Amino acid sequence: MKIEAVDFYYLSMPEILDIGDGSQDLLLVRVQAGPHVGWGECEASPLTSIASFVCPMSHSACKPVRDSVLGQRLEAVEDIGRIGDLVRANSLDLLQADHTLSGIDIALWDLLGKRFDEPVYRLLGFRRAFPKRPYASMLFGDTPEETREKGKRARAAGYRVAKFGWGPYGTGSLDADAAQVHAAREGIGPDGILLVDAGTIWGEKIAAAAPRLDALQECAATWLEEPFTSGAFAAYRTLAEMSGSVRLAGGEGAHNAAMAMHLIDHAGIGYVQIDAGRIGGITPAKRVADYARARGVTYVNHTFTSHLALSASLQPYAGYAEDDFCEYPVEPKALAVEITKEHLLPEANGQITLPERPGLGMTPDLAAAKRYLVETEITVAGKVLYRTPELAE
Amino acid sequence: MKIEAVDFYYLSMPEILDIGDGSQDLLLVRVQAGPHVGWGECEASPLTSIASFVCPMSHSACKPVRDSVLGQRLEAVEDIGRIGDLVRANSLDLLQADHTLSGIDIALWDLLGKRFDEPVYRLLGFRRAFPKRPYASMLFGDTPEETREKGKRARAAGYRVAKFGWGPYGTGSLDADAAQVHAAREGIGPDGILLVDAGTIWGEKIAAAAPRLDALQECAATWLEEPFTSGAFAAYRTLAEMSGSVRLAGGEGAHNAAMAMHLIDHAGIGYVQIDAGRIGGITPAKRVADYARARGVTYVNHTFTSHLALSASLQPYAGYAEDDFCEYPVEPKALAVEITKEHLLPEANGQITLPERPGLGMTPDLAAAKRYLVETEITVAGKVLYRTPELAE
Repeated sequence: MKIEAVDFYYLSMPEILDIGDGSQDLLLVRVQAGPHVGWGECEASPLTSIASFVCPMSHSACKPVRDSVLGQRLEAVEDIGRIGDLVRANSLDLLQADHTLSGIDIALWDLLGKRFDEPVYRLLGFRRAFPKRPYASMLFGDTPEETREKGKRARAAGYRVAKFGWGPYGTGSLDADAAQVHAAREGIGPDGILLVDAGTIWGEKIAAAAPRLDALQECAATWLEEPFTSGAFAAYRTLAEMSGSVRLAGGEGAHNAAMAMHLIDHAGIGYVQIDAGRIGGITPAKRVADYARARGVTYVNHTFTSHLALSASLQPYAGYAEDDFCEYPVEPKALAVEITKEHLLPEANGQITLPERPGLGMTPDLAAAKRYLVETEITVAGKVLYRTPELAE
Repeated sequence: MKIEAVDFYYLSMPEILDIGDGSQDLLLVRVQAGPHVGWGECEASPLTSIASFVCPMSHSACKPVRDSVLGQRLEAVEDIGRIGDLVRANSLDLLQADHTLSGIDIALWDLLGKRFDEPVYRLLGFRRAFPKRPYASMLFGDTPEETREKGKRARAAGYRVAKFGWGPYGTGSLDADAAQVHAAREGIGPDGILLVDAGTIWGEKIAAAAPRLDALQECAATWLEEPFTSGAFAAYRTLAEMSGSVRLAGGEGAHNAAMAMHLIDHAGIGYVQIDAGRIGGITPAKRVADYARARGVTYVNHTFTSHLALSASLQPYAGYAEDDFCEYPVEPKALAVEITKEHLLPEANGQITLPERPGLGMTPDLAAAKRYLVETEITVAGKVLYRTPELAE
């Protein structure tokens, strides 16, 4: 069969707030081949990804993404990798292409899963999907007291793993930051697993990051996430050599497999965090998961939107029992909740396991999607290149 | 003064051919602050870069590029770096942003150059602009005979440096590829400087690249460009250890300074090739030029469009006499020629020197631009986010 249609739907909350909540909009992707339909999702800036799908060609290595997808043969999982390679070659000079490809690759895996009546993780070669420990991702409170209360609430809600980040952390005095980390530890209790996210606050400055390690070690933090901007390999590596039991985490910005591998090879990270909606989809994410495993680095998903995206992000490491953390969107906006009919809910023991259903196991709720649909139109030289298509099953 | 207006103009040849010629379209950027105007250019896919400038915000780290530029203070060169940092932070999850920023950063340097009545290279701290040796960039011929003739013509046209690439090279037999390289050497003569561009043809396969080194060494090629995809650091490094006097070149795809630095640190390249229209503009390009210099790596521009882009790409290393190669678009399309009133033409000795005029020293020809203007309109939720503005001085 051939890929006959690729449709993009820009969905958004009525109002977008200027906060670090990535669940406020999404780009839903529908792919059709023969009698089958698959669904995927691209992370962030729906309009820009739509533009890169339909833009006029600039030259032979800067073609719109659709030129490498529409009409392509789709019979076996190897075709997905082949199509991704085509996109990367034909859109080499089109920067946004990796984000656009991500949602398409995810939809292709979903489609083939339905065709072969298998969950995606099994098409990836895993025999089973192991349960993951979801971590509650929270902002640090404005005060240590507030942080302590947040930790207690996460613990009461059943989370054994909690991540605190952003907020005042990293910009205040050493004592103030230490008080925050101690409060987080007290909140989640001595047996909770504590993760800290610095949100690239120190740029490339080792001297700003290093003195914070003491408090992180005292409080037995498991990882320190993104102390530096993602390209600051030398700073990462130097800090990793000083950080003892606290491992560094990073990788969410990687938009191809090589970038994540470079972090593993040259930045000394202990955890690699991959967003399947950015890295080019499930195919390169699986490549990173295998690469990380062979090098003693733990793979973790990065996900901040719907449970369609969450399922996609968990498939690439579903079968690796040891890689058992899972980023779980704790307070997504209504759009991200309503867009799927099924949800990946924590089980009685607090863990998350991928569904045994075919493909990603998530059905888009198109009636809900219609409520959030943002009508979009792009015209170039008098020709309509994109107009929001009808939402169809 | 403050940045009052940023306007994008999508210009294109009437027909775009499916060939590796990047001069077929361009995105012209006009920035206005107080009484001053500066001009810049973004490389490749104008529509996608326009979309990333105007797209609705997705969340606090995925804002449209314009949010970090319009209204910003612009008094000193330090403001340009500050604005770039703002874009990178506020548009962290918007992949296309680096390409969009590139044209803006270039226009900001041009604007301040006019304001201070200085060429950009002097604002960058260089006392003078040294002449560069332009290299004629050509495709390998379909046969060695054709390649030899191309080399002879380049030599007759006054080029002392010639780059051959793509075409049949790298995919045929070892003997066929060797015959091509020997023909290139014969064509440009024993005293010509020979560069070879493999155009990422071998992916990550060292076994495909390594046997080609013999012919390159026999023919005294100065560099082998892009043997592998740009993320294949390990393959690059391994080949670099085997390549002897033939140094590896790469970097044109880098969309921020860190990516180029990683190639220098981890891929063993001897030449780093930077496109100011992709890396985020002149600011990060200068950072790479300094970094390369401190590590014995030679900086070269990558340019395939207008002489506005060419001037921008030469400024970051204008003052480094030793870094004296210069990629020079030899057969640009009419658009790329007509878009500027001035041109950077080889002098009697075949060399290129940046003009002493303020800013980039290039005046856009707006009457010419109008002939190539592509009317574009983007509407989201009933609101026109972009419509091609009037072309104004």
